Amino acid sequence: MNGAESLIHTLVNGGVDVCFMNPGTSEMHFVAALDSVPQMRGVLCLFEGVATGAADGYGRMAGVPAATLLHLGPGLGNGIANLHNAHKAHTPLVNIVGEHATWHIQHNAPLTADIAALARTVSAWVRTASSAATVGADGAAAIAAARTGAGQVATLILPGDAAWEEGGVVVEIPPLPRPIPVAPERVTQAAALLHSGRKTALVLGETVMDEASQRMASRIAAATGSQLIGARSGRRVVRGAGLPVLERIPYPVDQALAMLAGFEQMILVGAYPPVAFFAYPGKPSLLAPPDCRMYELADLHSDCLASLAALADELDAPDRLHAVNELARPALPSGPISVEKVWAGLAALLPAGAILSDESVTSGRNAHRWMAGAPPHEWLHITGGSIGQGLPVATGAALACPERRVFAMESDGSAMYTLQALWTQAREQLDVTTILFANRSYAILQGELRNLAQDASGRKAGAMLSLDNPALDWVQLAQGMGVPACRVTTAEEYIGALTVGIEEPGPRLIEVVV
Amino acid sequence: MNGAESLIHTLVNGGVDVCFMNPGTSEMHFVAALDSVPQMRGVLCLFEGVATGAADGYGRMAGVPAATLLHLGPGLGNGIANLHNAHKAHTPLVNIVGEHATWHIQHNAPLTADIAALARTVSAWVRTASSAATVGADGAAAIAAARTGAGQVATLILPGDAAWEEGGVVVEIPPLPRPIPVAPERVTQAAALLHSGRKTALVLGETVMDEASQRMASRIAAATGSQLIGARSGRRVVRGAGLPVLERIPYPVDQALAMLAGFEQMILVGAYPPVAFFAYPGKPSLLAPPDCRMYELADLHSDCLASLAALADELDAPDRLHAVNELARPALPSGPISVEKVWAGLAALLPAGAILSDESVTSGRNAHRWMAGAPPHEWLHITGGSIGQGLPVATGAALACPERRVFAMESDGSAMYTLQALWTQAREQLDVTTILFANRSYAILQGELRNLAQDASGRKAGAMLSLDNPALDWVQLAQGMGVPACRVTTAEEYIGALTVGIEEPGPRLIEVVV
Repeated sequence: MNGAESLIHTLVNGGVDVCFMNPGTSEMHFVAALDSVPQMRGVLCLFEGVATGAADGYGRMAGVPAATLLHLGPGLGNGIANLHNAHKAHTPLVNIVGEHATWHIQHNAPLTADIAALARTVSAWVRTASSAATVGADGAAAIAAARTGAGQVATLILPGDAAWEEGGVVVEIPPLPRPIPVAPERVTQAAALLHSGRKTALVLGETVMDEASQRMASRIAAATGSQLIGARSGRRVVRGAGLPVLERIPYPVDQALAMLAGFEQMILVGAYPPVAFFAYPGKPSLLAPPDCRMYELADLHSDCLASLAALADELDAPDRLHAVNELARPALPSGPISVEKVWAGLAALLPAGAILSDESVTSGRNAHRWMAGAPPHEWLHITGGSIGQGLPVATGAALACPERRVFAMESDGSAMYTLQALWTQAREQLDVTTILFANRSYAILQGELRNLAQDASGRKAGAMLSLDNPALDWVQLAQGMGVPACRVTTAEEYIGALTVGIEEPGPRLIEVVV
Repeated sequence: MNGAESLIHTLVNGGVDVCFMNPGTSEMHFVAALDSVPQMRGVLCLFEGVATGAADGYGRMAGVPAATLLHLGPGLGNGIANLHNAHKAHTPLVNIVGEHATWHIQHNAPLTADIAALARTVSAWVRTASSAATVGADGAAAIAAARTGAGQVATLILPGDAAWEEGGVVVEIPPLPRPIPVAPERVTQAAALLHSGRKTALVLGETVMDEASQRMASRIAAATGSQLIGARSGRRVVRGAGLPVLERIPYPVDQALAMLAGFEQMILVGAYPPVAFFAYPGKPSLLAPPDCRMYELADLHSDCLASLAALADELDAPDRLHAVNELARPALPSGPISVEKVWAGLAALLPAGAILSDESVTSGRNAHRWMAGAPPHEWLHITGGSIGQGLPVATGAALACPERRVFAMESDGSAMYTLQALWTQAREQLDVTTILFANRSYAILQGELRNLAQDASGRKAGAMLSLDNPALDWVQLAQGMGVPACRVTTAEEYIGALTVGIEEPGPRLIEVVV
């Protein structure tokens, strides 16, 4: 058994049985070894950012890591942006990067690069395999690293000779590290703060917006009069009818400052003190009032749900939620299409258990107004702020959850970064409906430009934020990659297309000109 | 004047008047400042790999750097692969990466990343601007760094406050560093080696295949009986009728070993000892015979042309070339299209001074047979081995040379990495004709898989190298980005489309199903 075969067997032993890949020559022995391990599913992506984003989406939904297979430093480079998002989301992910054979690196062949340096910027764990005999153990360690705490990106660099030499050893996966329990005194102190009478926010972090955590936190809020607040984005956020009302920190700084004004203390659960997405002249980085006391109940690698349960117990909190979204399906919209009607129509027809990969940016600002009353569903947000994750994350989520419907809520500017994901959706016949808001601009940046105090009406500056010359034709782009697509200008057309997207198998794209 | 304005003025002073950009919020003051400096041309790209690749193509052809503008760490990540190619090509390039305001970085906002660590993997020079007062000087230093020696990638990290604060100072560019002269004794020693009677190769490196260097080297070869050999790839290689015959080191290791067998010494001119592109089990990394003596006449940052001229003088080499390509236009092909007919047709119709951005990979293996007799033209190769540079480099080259025709020789697999370049070609109405070989596979990898000693007929492995399910429709993909396109299956259709591509303004794509 060669090193590549031992690695793939070890990955499968550890529950890692999907690999999103864009291989090259230095990874060819890994590719060849796929056929020796029937349980491993290889998924070809035509750009590495699709592979890493899909692995993020898969890991978020499956709760176990997917693997990637990338081609040397430049291939990792192409995957960096979505690894950054996965890193910030604490998604469990085993990122495998091919490297030249150990004895070849010194000669500085064209593709030689400092892979480890690139990897460290987006990984909690980086190791370079040194031989075929040990690469199985390296793979097991990578899985353990990826599954540590809330989850992590673990990068394993795989030199060609470690893959192709004989002597590979399949390794059993060590028991997963248990979540770190929260010390009882942290719970009693939090309870004391909640009894203090001060105005308190209970802040759920990016990885703590699952249903059980939300319900437990809502019980605490109901029992104490504190306010439940969610992080701006989450790797996986359950929303909809029957679930607690959960207000999240908005992106615009002024709105966030207004929301958090007046709080005297915050109980942080897997959360950081709220920080502005970007810096602006004359505006603060920290969004809470300067004298607001920050108290960390649990960091995100601890057992956050258990800490919430212990706090509810400590408080003798009744089994009653603070506020719950009621089922409220809007009527089907009609007439000329608009952003609002897209969300209303989706809320009207959304199947239960749907997954929304959200990269709608400005077009999604009011989505919650419509979606809160839809049947329970999950949102996957851009946790690291790097645009170009929506289509890949949708791809990986659909692979992880073949029985659920996935909607990629996209903007034209965002979708262009990693549009190659559509091809993988077509190839794997994934049930992903992409709803593409075509506003033909970087609308969020037009807003940012307007926010500058200076004159922002310049022709050249405006041109750098406009996508209308030429207009992108998303129907042709999608069809060119094998995804059926249509363009809608009325709500009726949209509802018709959405119905097909919900009922028919396979991917589909709806371009909404707004 | 704010920092951004001072930086743009300084760039323009230093001859950097094109900026390929994909900006975000943290770069908005740079974007706004574009309108205060009429000489600076901003070129919007819808993916950062397009921006960096276009800056590479521009720098190669213009001989002065273009600037980029990228959005924080993830934006730089998306640009890494083509920066890697530019880094290996020694293209002069001023790579500007936005960063959070200095006081915001500590708060670990979502987009925070180690930009400098990423940049160092692909840059010869990295600096972070510290204030608006000094960013002009930083820009001047970046230009000087980019124009050092054969050229370099210089990365300037631009925090938001260094851009938006007042107090910017426009800085004059220091005189460019002169090329390092080669010591006379290196020339006399090289002459002695050439007189030794040993079988000698005169090897021109990646940056030394301009017309003047080729002619001087060919004179030396003619005078001494040595063999003129070019590096496997070049950032800019002049070929065609009237130019010296220049055999380049082939990609397949066995062919390269055969070509270099028997050489007793190599005179390296801006070249490294020849090394295999990839490592293979049981094959060497170094391609020259083990006992072949390596002698470096000049490293690539020295004045290589002057060293060749001094050597020719030292040898009293007559003004006579070793061998010259004669003008030989093939007849127009007819019948079903093939890879060979694509090259024959191009050689038959090629306008003088054409620029070929070559990412044809396997489809380009025999191109030289047809193109050697075409009118003089230039090839831009993938110097760093990272696929996805062909369309962006063509874009930048066309911007640098509006009076010349650019041909992007592409493969379907390669073109998918950075297909967004087509949109910029349409927006800027650049005279680029993309000839896309659609073999619907990673054909080079299929060859590599076959080369493995083991059974490589597995279904799963084969599927990872095949792009035929679904087939990409390049006519729709190109048209979706505003580039007129057609698909050809006969040589007659191809010649018709190629003629339009040569005669009509603006971009065009010809999908050749092979």
